[in-house]
Amino acid sequence: MRKKLIAEFLGTYFLVFAGTGAVVIDDVTKSLTHVGIALTFGLVVMALIYTFGYISGAHFNPAVTIGFFIHRDINKIEALNYIITQLIAGIIASATLLCLFGNVASLGATLPRGSWEQSFILEFILTFFLMMVIFGSAVHGKAVKSFAGVAIGATVGLEAMFAGPICGASMNPARSIGPAIVSGTTQCLWVYIVATILGASCAAIIYKILHEK
Amino acid sequence: MRKKLIAEFLGTYFLVFAGTGAVVIDDVTKSLTHVGIALTFGLVVMALIYTFGYISGAHFNPAVTIGFFIHRDINKIEALNYIITQLIAGIIASATLLCLFGNVASLGATLPRGSWEQSFILEFILTFFLMMVIFGSAVHGKAVKSFAGVAIGATVGLEAMFAGPICGASMNPARSIGPAIVSGTTQCLWVYIVATILGASCAAIIYKILHEK
Amino acid sequence: MRKKLIAEFLGTYFLVFAGTGAVVIDDVTKSLTHVGIALTFGLVVMALIYTFGYISGAHFNPAVTIGFFIHRDINKIEALNYIITQLIAGIIASATLLCLFGNVASLGATLPRGSWEQSFILEFILTFFLMMVIFGSAVHGKAVKSFAGVAIGATVGLEAMFAGPICGASMNPARSIGPAIVSGTTQCLWVYIVATILGASCAAIIYKILHEK
Amino acid sequence: MRKKLIAEFLGTYFLVFAGTGAVVIDDVTKSLTHVGIALTFGLVVMALIYTFGYISGAHFNPAVTIGFFIHRDINKIEALNYIITQLIAGIIASATLLCLFGNVASLGATLPRGSWEQSFILEFILTFFLMMVIFGSAVHGKAVKSFAGVAIGATVGLEAMFAGPICGASMNPARSIGPAIVSGTTQCLWVYIVATILGASCAAIIYKILHEK
Repeated sequence: MRKKLIAEFLGTYFLVFAGTGAVVIDDVTKSLTHVGIALTFGLVVMALIYTFGYISGAHFNPAVTIGFFIHRDINKIEALNYIITQLIAGIIASATLLCLFGNVASLGATLPRGSWEQSFILEFILTFFLMMVIFGSAVHGKAVKSFAGVAIGATVGLEAMFAGPICGASMNPARSIGPAIVSGTTQCLWVYIVATILGASCAAIIYKILHEK
Repeated sequence: MRKKLIAEFLGTYFLVFAGTGAVVIDDVTKSLTHVGIALTFGLVVMALIYTFGYISGAHFNPAVTIGFFIHRDINKIEALNYIITQLIAGIIASATLLCLFGNVASLGATLPRGSWEQSFILEFILTFFLMMVIFGSAVHGKAVKSFAGVAIGATVGLEAMFAGPICGASMNPARSIGPAIVSGTTQCLWVYIVATILGASCAAIIYKILHEK
Repeated sequence: MRKKLIAEFLGTYFLVFAGTGAVVIDDVTKSLTHVGIALTFGLVVMALIYTFGYISGAHFNPAVTIGFFIHRDINKIEALNYIITQLIAGIIASATLLCLFGNVASLGATLPRGSWEQSFILEFILTFFLMMVIFGSAVHGKAVKSFAGVAIGATVGLEAMFAGPICGASMNPARSIGPAIVSGTTQCLWVYIVATILGASCAAIIYKILHEK
Repeated sequence: MRKKLIAEFLGTYFLVFAGTGAVVIDDVTKSLTHVGIALTFGLVVMALIYTFGYISGAHFNPAVTIGFFIHRDINKIEALNYIITQLIAGIIASATLLCLFGNVASLGATLPRGSWEQSFILEFILTFFLMMVIFGSAVHGKAVKSFAGVAIGATVGLEAMFAGPICGASMNPARSIGPAIVSGTTQCLWVYIVATILGASCAAIIYKILHEK
């Protein structure tokens, strides 16, 4: 358990540090472009899955942990420990960015570009399919599991690519809570908590029903 | 069969939602660039193959289903069910985008930039080679099948990259019919149906002849 | 042998069609950018290796065929057949682009941006390392051969990325001869024939010496 | 041992030649963009790991060699030989670029954009996580080792992507010493030597403690 939580801590820290760091550094230097930010998110998830996947399952995301809990891959105590660790890691990652760059670009906090309803629906769909890809590529008995990191990293990367400009493409409460709290940008934060957890939960319920029948 | 059609539905929905969503969101926000759109198409196909490949074969494309039918990998009834499911999924994906963003950028409908003949020939060649890569990397007995998702995703990505600015790089009737019908942009739609089916069929016939001898 | 030559023909045709097609379409539409062109070259090589690698070895490149001939992986007759097939495929690919787009951007012909000496040295180094990666990732007994397509595609992509703006990053006489002849842009063509063959040959000789000792 | 040092020499030479060559050529032609430079660094590391990994371990980086030495994967003599070879290869790569392009863009030397403290902390974190990914994906008994090249290449690519505009994202003393010495840009060079070695060493110590318990 200790090793699992260290893996979740290091993984979530680096995911939030690199991903929201990309947003911050693009704001400061205008050199990454949106394409570079999206690639950073996808590549860091892929690399971390191959680094920590066999230790903790490489969740790095409270919504994913809740999805696994609903699908009964993880118990209540473990899920709670995972989620607390992920949230702390996200907050420390944002605090590191604050020390290095000051409070710029809201430290990469996610904010709806248009209405909150639009971003809510998008985040729901994004996290639903992220969780589906996780079940399909990493959990299912027939999956080519060695490629799960490639498939899941690609999903995070492509969702950040196409949906990022509208809703920020969080798919991950820890990734949104860290910058929101540390930079003080908490408007609409609930959207990124509720929609992502709902999306992952729906995917878990549907996946379970499909496989029990 | 039920599971296969659910996989085809979810896969085609997400392919069209993410891919044409990238076109729509780029039109609204001017931040993805053409490179970002092409990468979205390639990555979503790759991720979906690792997620649903072992269930339905991960066609998500009526032209590919027809190619497999000609190559005798799938029977008539199954092929018809697949194609109807894919078309419905594409239409619902475009309808979701319409609800979220309104009728902008023709919802990502494919249109020839120059003459329809030019786009017809391009779509034929693109789908021909896509089908060749599918047979060569995922069907052939000596293929390293675990890498089929990487090879096919790369093919969709690179064809969207180089040919997208001219013909839209559909390679997929479901991807073209969805946005065309929902946005009401049906001029030249037949090109993206006929050329892609012809391309996939030619590839299937040639592949069959080569292997029967 | 017949199947091998068909594989070399289709592979080289699609490599030249997609790669130089990217140059042509970027010239016409200004939308791919140099990054998109380089990614097209890398991805097409990767996809083709997983499609045709187990049939013909997936050379698609006279310099690589000569490298394999020096390393004694292929005999003289076969090498000659391969090279002629590759050259014909490259020319037909350029002719297809000419029919579709007219004689724009010299059909993607490679030309030195600065002095020919600079491009000669660059092409020598690029092809030397391409051949080294091929031997190291696809031929050596301890190589993880299933990843050869990823390694070789990455090499072509990165070399096109960093060296393309100076020398065109041909690394492949068939890729340079096709557009040069069909568009009539034959100045400095010899550089792309001599430097690439020299680079691949040096790599083959050094690799052979290292392994015989 | 001879073969290992040749592999380290060729690998480090090509890493520095391609990576810093991308910086130089982008300065001359303004066509790669920062995204293209970062992709070049990531792809070259990935390709080289599949080419030379099974021979020398594919360090190409004195900080990584020191990390492996602390983790007791390599002995003192071998480590020293590796480091000297890597430094010589980096210097010769920069000298090749000087011959080809003259002393432009400081030959890709790394320089802090802001304060040296900021770049020091960034380089420490970058190299710490690079070394963690190396241990987790390539050394650990449960790792899917065939994917180590993908994971490590992705890490170098994403770190170059998000942190490059601030600190240059060296993570590698050989990559910084080569251009610094050959172009005469030695201010702050110590940052890229000390911070990277400290980062890799800390990762090695923590990884060792975690696994001994």
